Amino acid sequence: MRKLSRYTTIMALSLPFAALAQEKIDAAMMQKIRKEGLENSKVMEIAFNLTDKSGNRLMNSPGYFRAANYAKDALTSWGVSGAKLDPFGEFGKGWELEKSYVAITAPYYKPLLAFPKAWCGGTKGQKSAEVIVISAKDTVALEAYKGKLKGKIIILDQPTDYKHSFKPDAFRYTDEELAKMAAEQPQAPRQAANPADTAAMRRMREQMAARGGGGAARVGALLKEMAKNEGAIALLSSGGVRSHDGTIFAQGGGAYKGTDPENFLDLALGLEDFNTILRLAKSGTPVKMDVDVKTKFYDKDLQGYNVIAEIPGTDPALKDEVVMIGGHLDSWQTGTGATDNASGSAVMMEAMRILKTLGIQPKRTIRIGLWGGEEQGLHGSRGYVKNTFGDISTMQTTPAHAKFSSYFNIDNGTGKIRGIYLQGNAQAKGIFTEWLAPFKDLGATTVTIANTGGTDHQSFDAIGLPGFQFIQDPIEYNQRTHHSNMDVYDHLIEEDLKQIATIVAAFAYNAAQREAKIPRKEMPKPRPAGGRNF
Amino acid sequence: MRKLSRYTTIMALSLPFAALAQEKIDAAMMQKIRKEGLENSKVMEIAFNLTDKSGNRLMNSPGYFRAANYAKDALTSWGVSGAKLDPFGEFGKGWELEKSYVAITAPYYKPLLAFPKAWCGGTKGQKSAEVIVISAKDTVALEAYKGKLKGKIIILDQPTDYKHSFKPDAFRYTDEELAKMAAEQPQAPRQAANPADTAAMRRMREQMAARGGGGAARVGALLKEMAKNEGAIALLSSGGVRSHDGTIFAQGGGAYKGTDPENFLDLALGLEDFNTILRLAKSGTPVKMDVDVKTKFYDKDLQGYNVIAEIPGTDPALKDEVVMIGGHLDSWQTGTGATDNASGSAVMMEAMRILKTLGIQPKRTIRIGLWGGEEQGLHGSRGYVKNTFGDISTMQTTPAHAKFSSYFNIDNGTGKIRGIYLQGNAQAKGIFTEWLAPFKDLGATTVTIANTGGTDHQSFDAIGLPGFQFIQDPIEYNQRTHHSNMDVYDHLIEEDLKQIATIVAAFAYNAAQREAKIPRKEMPKPRPAGGRNF
Repeated sequence: MRKLSRYTTIMALSLPFAALAQEKIDAAMMQKIRKEGLENSKVMEIAFNLTDKSGNRLMNSPGYFRAANYAKDALTSWGVSGAKLDPFGEFGKGWELEKSYVAITAPYYKPLLAFPKAWCGGTKGQKSAEVIVISAKDTVALEAYKGKLKGKIIILDQPTDYKHSFKPDAFRYTDEELAKMAAEQPQAPRQAANPADTAAMRRMREQMAARGGGGAARVGALLKEMAKNEGAIALLSSGGVRSHDGTIFAQGGGAYKGTDPENFLDLALGLEDFNTILRLAKSGTPVKMDVDVKTKFYDKDLQGYNVIAEIPGTDPALKDEVVMIGGHLDSWQTGTGATDNASGSAVMMEAMRILKTLGIQPKRTIRIGLWGGEEQGLHGSRGYVKNTFGDISTMQTTPAHAKFSSYFNIDNGTGKIRGIYLQGNAQAKGIFTEWLAPFKDLGATTVTIANTGGTDHQSFDAIGLPGFQFIQDPIEYNQRTHHSNMDVYDHLIEEDLKQIATIVAAFAYNAAQREAKIPRKEMPKPRPAGGRNF
Repeated sequence: MRKLSRYTTIMALSLPFAALAQEKIDAAMMQKIRKEGLENSKVMEIAFNLTDKSGNRLMNSPGYFRAANYAKDALTSWGVSGAKLDPFGEFGKGWELEKSYVAITAPYYKPLLAFPKAWCGGTKGQKSAEVIVISAKDTVALEAYKGKLKGKIIILDQPTDYKHSFKPDAFRYTDEELAKMAAEQPQAPRQAANPADTAAMRRMREQMAARGGGGAARVGALLKEMAKNEGAIALLSSGGVRSHDGTIFAQGGGAYKGTDPENFLDLALGLEDFNTILRLAKSGTPVKMDVDVKTKFYDKDLQGYNVIAEIPGTDPALKDEVVMIGGHLDSWQTGTGATDNASGSAVMMEAMRILKTLGIQPKRTIRIGLWGGEEQGLHGSRGYVKNTFGDISTMQTTPAHAKFSSYFNIDNGTGKIRGIYLQGNAQAKGIFTEWLAPFKDLGATTVTIANTGGTDHQSFDAIGLPGFQFIQDPIEYNQRTHHSNMDVYDHLIEEDLKQIATIVAAFAYNAAQREAKIPRKEMPKPRPAGGRNF
């Protein structure tokens, strides 16, 4: 999931706000769901199995499959039907760290916490090497370093300033912030965002634009190529401005398709260690390091898999109609993806458990989707949507498209639900307002016309299906856990996860029992580039 | 330096508040000091040399001597006289980490950041071992584990809950907080605290009392003894409630006198890693680890050394009188002691540089003391005071005692000076109020009768000499840097250090030029236990 923005954007809107509908809500069932979700929760047990027990869940890594198989087995054990690992198309290689030891050995010894970026190669045994500082603003300046990289550890002369934390890492939305979201107005229609166009890609484009035609990106790419060709040991990267206090943000180190070669070893450090090495080396003090990194690629099966399971509908007229809940199961590699997105996966599994435990016989089918490959571009949900509902490059849809009610997603960390984003679907406002009413005392009240992006509900939205994501309290998502080594079990908040699972179970139940499907926005236009991966 | 307390205590007071004296302040000199200190500062260069360049400065380690020799040479290069490493008495062994590699290898691979506590032994090569959980509330319960520890890595069943940071790590004193300090009232006289009685010792006593006669402490001690005897590999410790987000607090692992044996390897982890290992092991999942720790002891010279240098006085009647400024130079081992206390050492050196650069010819001698062994009990300053001014066990004093004016200390991190603690010395109130006046615009205004403890000014105070410490903005001292791996150069604030050095230089100058020495409190009573170390 992309970094949270505190300012949401407004999406296409083609219909005026509907007046409040009169939803039929089963108050007794809402009470039962609350009781099961808040008093008999298993959400932390599920989260433990997805994090501590599975390890990181980098797509197609052994940890991903441990978690996927656990999810399949747990759902089955609760009586959820047809749980399976469902192929969504070719993803690429899995990757796993088998050893990482990084230390400064001169001018003195210091062990470092450093994370190889995903899909990088290793060092082929422990190497001792001197650090070389590269000061090059463009590829021409890089020429000066040609022939000097063999056996070296490379650091770019790009320090990241430390900013002391005079604001809290963790916070919840204030009443004022929620009121502002609720008061957002529909904007003029515009094309919905391409679901493959994640924040990471947008940021890269912006950075390339800001640096004049990809100068810095070209420097980085060329430097890695030189480093690999000349036999350098590794590149040191600062994990960026959020990588401080021992928290290190690290993602992928390059391409991972079946035919792609190993990427040159790129080590993410905390900014303090990065800056220390840089200051020392620039002061003329030789810095030596020991590095021993071993990585393993998994390329026997390049297919990607989601986890799918369902509670079949029972109403003869409606049982072929489908309500979905879900979140992505994959994570980055440095932590165990607790808030991104074991939290979302755990609450969705728990919602299914709550509904099965209560023995509900839903009119429509309630299906769970735990998506793979979200972090690399929503691949799992996009593949599932393409295989199941239609192709966004042509907007040709399947019969299942007509029978789909709605999809509800969680992927904003551990914070409890404060409301829901309508993604510009004004007709859903009255419905969701009434559905939230029984949970007002739990802090979930806000319905905003605004759009939120960067995760799997967009895959449904892109083909004209109602796909929603809830508003969650941000807690410390951007500051500490998102794509970092601190995205681990202890950073979850039990009470918040219980609340989320309870409300999601209620929404799934309401959507399954409601007389009509959730109203839809206008069908988007075909997007010929929509099928690309990156 | 001990953890900061937001609530200061009031010390013995034997005299009523003095009326504001009429201090003669050399306004032109104050301006020159400001200009040199704020515009031509070398404080960050000094700090770089004490931190990045020297490494950690654990007492009697090679890093300590690198820093001490740098300080001696830098002071000499600025023209400060007689710079030397000055022995203060027997301290004990030095200790250094030569290798530390710690990783989980089952149920999956994960590299861990873990710090061996100081003065622990190593593993004699890389060891692979299974984790064993010890659940023992008393020594009787420990019996059940006898004979089971050989080749094991031990974890006590004592998780530390993670608390999300809903308050900022960093903060400055508000006007209200400063006003409250300024309004503190003198309290009834009581015996001054024993300078060897640090917060760490008090905490230990409190914990032992709370746990019923040292139960937990006895369990810990006995467990380490069993572990060593049976041939266990290491003990895992949570660094405590502040050890989260990758920040790890770690101090000493046991005794370090020349005759003490190596301590059993005690590894401080962040609470997230500690809890993950504990949860996994308790769930019945075997946890295996690779640990390779090599440590080195330095026992050729057990003597401890301070760094002493001075600007000799020039007034025939006053040149034998001495004003001192200082702070401790030693640090703990996981970071580079940037805020505890390279900051204090750097500003004191910079204050001397400012005064020499301005070519001052002080009436009294201005001497700097950079203390060793503060972290283990103010050993350096206590030894210096004992050797120079007298023995607190008898209160027999030397002639130098009579000729001493005052000592000013910095040891509360990187935050700028907001005022000064009088340590109960009401007669100094008017003097310091006037001395601070030229720096009102820099935020330094508060004079409080209150005492602050835990560092080297107490060694002077204990023998009846005026010893003071400044009030500093806390910034993130307790939350992030104090005794942690994040106590590194990047966490220093340049503007604040410049301000401190400037004000300290002014205070040193004023104390040297003032007609009389700083008035004293009543002489304390002899303290027969005052000489003990721990």
